[in-house]
Amino acid sequence: MIKIGIVGCGYWGPNLIRNFSEVKGAQVIACADVRPDRLQFVKQRYPAIEVTKEYNRLLQREDIDAVSIATPASTHFSLAREALAHNKHVLIEKPMTKSSKDAQELIRAAKRKKRVLMVGHTFEYAGAVRKIRELLSRGEIGDIFYFDSTRANLGLFQKDVNVIWDLAPHDLSIMLYALKLSPVSVLAVGNAYVNSSVEDICYITLFFPKKIIGHIHISWLAPVKFRRTVIAGSKKMIVYDDVENIEKVKVFERGVTVKENSGPKGILERQLFYQMGDVWSPRIDTQEPLKIECEHFIDCVKNGKAPSSDGAKGLEIVRILEAVDRSIKEGGKIIHI
Amino acid sequence: MIKIGIVGCGYWGPNLIRNFSEVKGAQVIACADVRPDRLQFVKQRYPAIEVTKEYNRLLQREDIDAVSIATPASTHFSLAREALAHNKHVLIEKPMTKSSKDAQELIRAAKRKKRVLMVGHTFEYAGAVRKIRELLSRGEIGDIFYFDSTRANLGLFQKDVNVIWDLAPHDLSIMLYALKLSPVSVLAVGNAYVNSSVEDICYITLFFPKKIIGHIHISWLAPVKFRRTVIAGSKKMIVYDDVENIEKVKVFERGVTVKENSGPKGILERQLFYQMGDVWSPRIDTQEPLKIECEHFIDCVKNGKAPSSDGAKGLEIVRILEAVDRSIKEGGKIIHI
Amino acid sequence: MIKIGIVGCGYWGPNLIRNFSEVKGAQVIACADVRPDRLQFVKQRYPAIEVTKEYNRLLQREDIDAVSIATPASTHFSLAREALAHNKHVLIEKPMTKSSKDAQELIRAAKRKKRVLMVGHTFEYAGAVRKIRELLSRGEIGDIFYFDSTRANLGLFQKDVNVIWDLAPHDLSIMLYALKLSPVSVLAVGNAYVNSSVEDICYITLFFPKKIIGHIHISWLAPVKFRRTVIAGSKKMIVYDDVENIEKVKVFERGVTVKENSGPKGILERQLFYQMGDVWSPRIDTQEPLKIECEHFIDCVKNGKAPSSDGAKGLEIVRILEAVDRSIKEGGKIIHI
Amino acid sequence: MIKIGIVGCGYWGPNLIRNFSEVKGAQVIACADVRPDRLQFVKQRYPAIEVTKEYNRLLQREDIDAVSIATPASTHFSLAREALAHNKHVLIEKPMTKSSKDAQELIRAAKRKKRVLMVGHTFEYAGAVRKIRELLSRGEIGDIFYFDSTRANLGLFQKDVNVIWDLAPHDLSIMLYALKLSPVSVLAVGNAYVNSSVEDICYITLFFPKKIIGHIHISWLAPVKFRRTVIAGSKKMIVYDDVENIEKVKVFERGVTVKENSGPKGILERQLFYQMGDVWSPRIDTQEPLKIECEHFIDCVKNGKAPSSDGAKGLEIVRILEAVDRSIKEGGKIIHI
Repeated sequence: MIKIGIVGCGYWGPNLIRNFSEVKGAQVIACADVRPDRLQFVKQRYPAIEVTKEYNRLLQREDIDAVSIATPASTHFSLAREALAHNKHVLIEKPMTKSSKDAQELIRAAKRKKRVLMVGHTFEYAGAVRKIRELLSRGEIGDIFYFDSTRANLGLFQKDVNVIWDLAPHDLSIMLYALKLSPVSVLAVGNAYVNSSVEDICYITLFFPKKIIGHIHISWLAPVKFRRTVIAGSKKMIVYDDVENIEKVKVFERGVTVKENSGPKGILERQLFYQMGDVWSPRIDTQEPLKIECEHFIDCVKNGKAPSSDGAKGLEIVRILEAVDRSIKEGGKIIHI
Repeated sequence: MIKIGIVGCGYWGPNLIRNFSEVKGAQVIACADVRPDRLQFVKQRYPAIEVTKEYNRLLQREDIDAVSIATPASTHFSLAREALAHNKHVLIEKPMTKSSKDAQELIRAAKRKKRVLMVGHTFEYAGAVRKIRELLSRGEIGDIFYFDSTRANLGLFQKDVNVIWDLAPHDLSIMLYALKLSPVSVLAVGNAYVNSSVEDICYITLFFPKKIIGHIHISWLAPVKFRRTVIAGSKKMIVYDDVENIEKVKVFERGVTVKENSGPKGILERQLFYQMGDVWSPRIDTQEPLKIECEHFIDCVKNGKAPSSDGAKGLEIVRILEAVDRSIKEGGKIIHI
Repeated sequence: MIKIGIVGCGYWGPNLIRNFSEVKGAQVIACADVRPDRLQFVKQRYPAIEVTKEYNRLLQREDIDAVSIATPASTHFSLAREALAHNKHVLIEKPMTKSSKDAQELIRAAKRKKRVLMVGHTFEYAGAVRKIRELLSRGEIGDIFYFDSTRANLGLFQKDVNVIWDLAPHDLSIMLYALKLSPVSVLAVGNAYVNSSVEDICYITLFFPKKIIGHIHISWLAPVKFRRTVIAGSKKMIVYDDVENIEKVKVFERGVTVKENSGPKGILERQLFYQMGDVWSPRIDTQEPLKIECEHFIDCVKNGKAPSSDGAKGLEIVRILEAVDRSIKEGGKIIHI
Repeated sequence: MIKIGIVGCGYWGPNLIRNFSEVKGAQVIACADVRPDRLQFVKQRYPAIEVTKEYNRLLQREDIDAVSIATPASTHFSLAREALAHNKHVLIEKPMTKSSKDAQELIRAAKRKKRVLMVGHTFEYAGAVRKIRELLSRGEIGDIFYFDSTRANLGLFQKDVNVIWDLAPHDLSIMLYALKLSPVSVLAVGNAYVNSSVEDICYITLFFPKKIIGHIHISWLAPVKFRRTVIAGSKKMIVYDDVENIEKVKVFERGVTVKENSGPKGILERQLFYQMGDVWSPRIDTQEPLKIECEHFIDCVKNGKAPSSDGAKGLEIVRILEAVDRSIKEGGKIIHI
């Protein structure tokens, strides 16, 4: 039985408790948070779990094998470093750290201590994203042209990060995971409207090998929730709409020939002659991604496996986020990664 | 009665014939095209219209007051220059010319000849766009933050222009018309996939005064027709979806407060507590925009008025397009306009 | 060359002229309408076509082989009877006649005169409907359970028919054509709101062999255009949404198992565990259905073939419409057909 | 403090526990279920709650003021009767009972015992439904014409009830609550496909005073979840789509005039001239309806108020369900209520 301590019981922590509780061979035995009301909330729901304001007490319990860190991003590094120092396996929420230097230090510490270090890139464990990676891997869409992703919401403002560090890790981890490629350089433009020191919208362009372009638009200032990814290839195209309950992933056959109709029938005419090919929406595994992530973490801890979203992946995302911040500061300059 | 000659009878020319035919006080009396089959097509539908392969014959007819040019973009300049030289009023399709130098020369010629020079920025005459301009003008959405526009299709490849000169004039003319502002600088990234010398996708960022950002994503490589514009302001937000038959323009009230629900209810929980304000979709004038454009041109010719989409507006769009091309060539560099 | 006369130049007549003009081996040479402005409209667009207020003049022209009747439904019978009396082939718009007695008389007359008698059930010539028939025929969805169709609009009020005779012929002809079955009995409820003597909404239930139920909801009082058909079978289900520009027909695999999740996660939980199978949207032939209908009519006239939507099909629809009217009058009584 | 016992801990019971736990002045102190695994599930999450297999033990606890019954419909009557016999206030899930006779007996018993008897018509406590009732009450849409509701799913088959008793209580309670009217008679057609003795689809027509027609289509055999209600009136129309996360309720202004365009522009032309009025989507209270229902129940118990969805309302729904069953058995006969 792998015994787990959860650090941070805000929005995400209870999801970790619930999901780890359902993983065979795992047990959440303690929770730490600096806020008494959050501890009380956990206690009420899960009376068997020890709750504490002292993170150290949790680390000092020798029966705890692993900690799962769901605190604000700025605290990730020091909390994870201490956990590793206490020989705990560590699962950290994204973004892994606030700097690549810190991420590297954690990777080294985990290596030294021979502990699992995993980053919570939850979307890599989502059925839709795994299906897309599978489709791309088997050449279903031909040569990949571009990967365009929009993630926009209203009002989910974070305190200690801008919209880039809040939302872009999702799109970046999806993009890198699906493409199995790393970007060479990045260019970004962002702006801070509501709070003049914190970017709330951003456009990121990523240059990948093989002429592939990645583009991410993230925003805290959108009227409706919008989660749409388009991946175009030489043979087919994929649309992934995460707001949809069904048909999240659609594959469009390209066989399209638009006839120019020369009749005096006006501007609606082109539409009439669209020759659309078949559209296919594959069945998607609907298991909760976090559940699969938690199972994977336990599997790695138990069997000494390297996690799919390991420290190196976490570091790569942090490096890109740093490059994005720098590009914005330098007015949209291309930054090599 | 204003007598009109149409130059170019491909896809758009017949739309011009049909719409000018319905404008009071206007009459299409001649058409020119180098392709005999297109002339035959016109002759069959409109036997009263003289058709000719010789543009010059059309210009030499003294009873023709105005010409409407719907030929490939690369021919706009020389055809319009000749028309003005023959004292004809001129309506040119977008993009006005292939260079700002040419556009300036046409403006000077029109001024010298005291003729109307108008550019076919059709969307400026669309009910939805006029409604948006009205909403922005009266401060409905508060301070404007950003203006994000996507226009994507599959397969409408053009021969003599890239996707930028083909599609961006629409979004640029809508953006400038609605904002009543001109961009200060531009940054663009584009790529040519299908034909390696002609860009088929492009991302354009425009920097306006007052910290307003404009962003345009245009593509000939999208699986489905996609026409969506989001304009965010400090008080409200507008979504304009031109693919919709109804509710093309929606105004979202901002009164949104997202409660973080601390119950162990999983990842769907935030959604439950979205506090969306009212959404309002104003009635839109559904007249065909080209009809209104044609009426406006005739009104300007008859009454010596300056057109709304005049040469100066056409020139401004051409200048931005030149800057976009340059920015792409220089790898995403910011170009001042 | 089959020479055609069009009778009735209102909304639909010009569509017939345009489409017959594009059929090889066919030529529209005359049009009749009692309204001078409609004739003038046709003359202006098609100066080669003779126009007349006198239907008889058109019938007396011996060079006219066939007439296509697009007048109000109440005139169909007498106009078609006269045409057959003059040895013309006849294409009548739906509904074929206002009574089954009249429809039978036309069928007998056409047989006697050895002329083609075809009814304009245009949807039978639509790519989407043909695809659905093909899918049902090859057992794609298994045993057919029910066929549910909604057709609703705002404001297309007709003068000489109620909503049943105006809209239901579409759904009935689609249903009978796709199922290849005839209903045994019918039950209907309707109401007249705006004009108290003309039904503007109606619900029709049709009982087919093999326990198949057909249901049609038609309405002139709907806020938005709504055209949606659901066909459920023992293996798969089809949704046909005619308002969509793409993905008009979707085939849903049934492989669905809903897990009851016993966690305290609230009412959204079921949704999470929907196990949806693949969804497949086959490419649909996007040719204008009326064009195919016109080609088929000409083919039948030239080659002595029996039309797919012949008089017998027209009669069957009229009989069902009569039964619907009767059921409504008798307060929802089941009427055997 | 009102102390509550929950009976039945399957799908809905835990929702009741969770919501009652959040109501001030209420406390869930015991749960009964015949299934040990469900009791164990509750015990694990809520260790302070006593769990028992013996319903009687729960009733014998004198400190329990009220019971909330979420067991299969066939057990509602006997469980509620016993609870009232023990002087408990009772909240029963819908449908209240399996017969109107039983429902009447419960009403009499509650009256005799002076206890609150409430039925869980949850939708009456939903923000969207309350908004619709408010709009209808203040005459926003003018004279009401018809109320059309579709509720369809795949696979939520129940064991002890057909689709009518499973799903129709929702639509019936919404309809009666929003209209503030009772139906005079009902007509229904249903069929049992998957299990030949249990109806899985049904069409219900309800005749209300003032010529208002209600129509409900319910189905367990639909490819996708579909929840759509249309209410048409003489001035405006309402569409309520419960599948939507935002804009659940839309109000359409009627100001529509469709111009028949006589140009030879084909079948898409009508669409162009739709003159749609404004569409308005009011902000909806997004509180969980069950929470409001639980609060209302506690308020009634504490303050001796009559519940909004009281026994009489529950009885009325049961009577309509009986009439629907009878109409189906009699082949679609109109049944007076």
